[in-house]
Amino acid sequence: MADRSGIVFIGSKPPMNYVLAIITSLSASDAKEITLKARGRAITTAVDVAEITRNRFIKDLKVSNISIGTEEMPAREGENRSRMVSTMEIKLTKE
Amino acid sequence: MADRSGIVFIGSKPPMNYVLAIITSLSASDAKEITLKARGRAITTAVDVAEITRNRFIKDLKVSNISIGTEEMPAREGENRSRMVSTMEIKLTKE
Repeated sequence: MADRSGIVFIGSKPPMNYVLAIITSLSASDAKEITLKARGRAITTAVDVAEITRNRFIKDLKVSNISIGTEEMPAREGENRSRMVSTMEIKLTKE
Repeated sequence: MADRSGIVFIGSKPPMNYVLAIITSLSASDAKEITLKARGRAITTAVDVAEITRNRFIKDLKVSNISIGTEEMPAREGENRSRMVSTMEIKLTKE
């Protein structure tokens, strides 16, 4: 879930799956930084994941940046138009 | 939906309701700033509202700050424990 570049893509799994991926990633490497990326409904999960990780597991983890944006998604089958979907990135930094 | 203090609470209504509240609030007063507040599932809606307002309606509106947090909600009927819920604030500023 967390690749070497320090990015975790948040999807529809339970938040704890991603929390564990972050903890593993930060403890396995010397990385001091990890970025959560989410789209659409997963944005709420990304905030939950960041908050759970910070409050319960890695107390010295700070939210160093949050950004939001919009991406165009290709039309789904049976639809004519592409859809716009909101995106969010949360960067967490270990002090 | 938008009171005088420049805060819009995002709930479970369709995003456009909140977009209109923001546009009305920013055009009626000399306010240069508005803050969206959301909890739980409404966080995704808040991001949608900010993005739609910025991209389609008020082009000179910038996201000046985003913060996330956690709030303790009282236990619902039939539950023993209080729940933790994620919160988000998005501050939009007109240039």
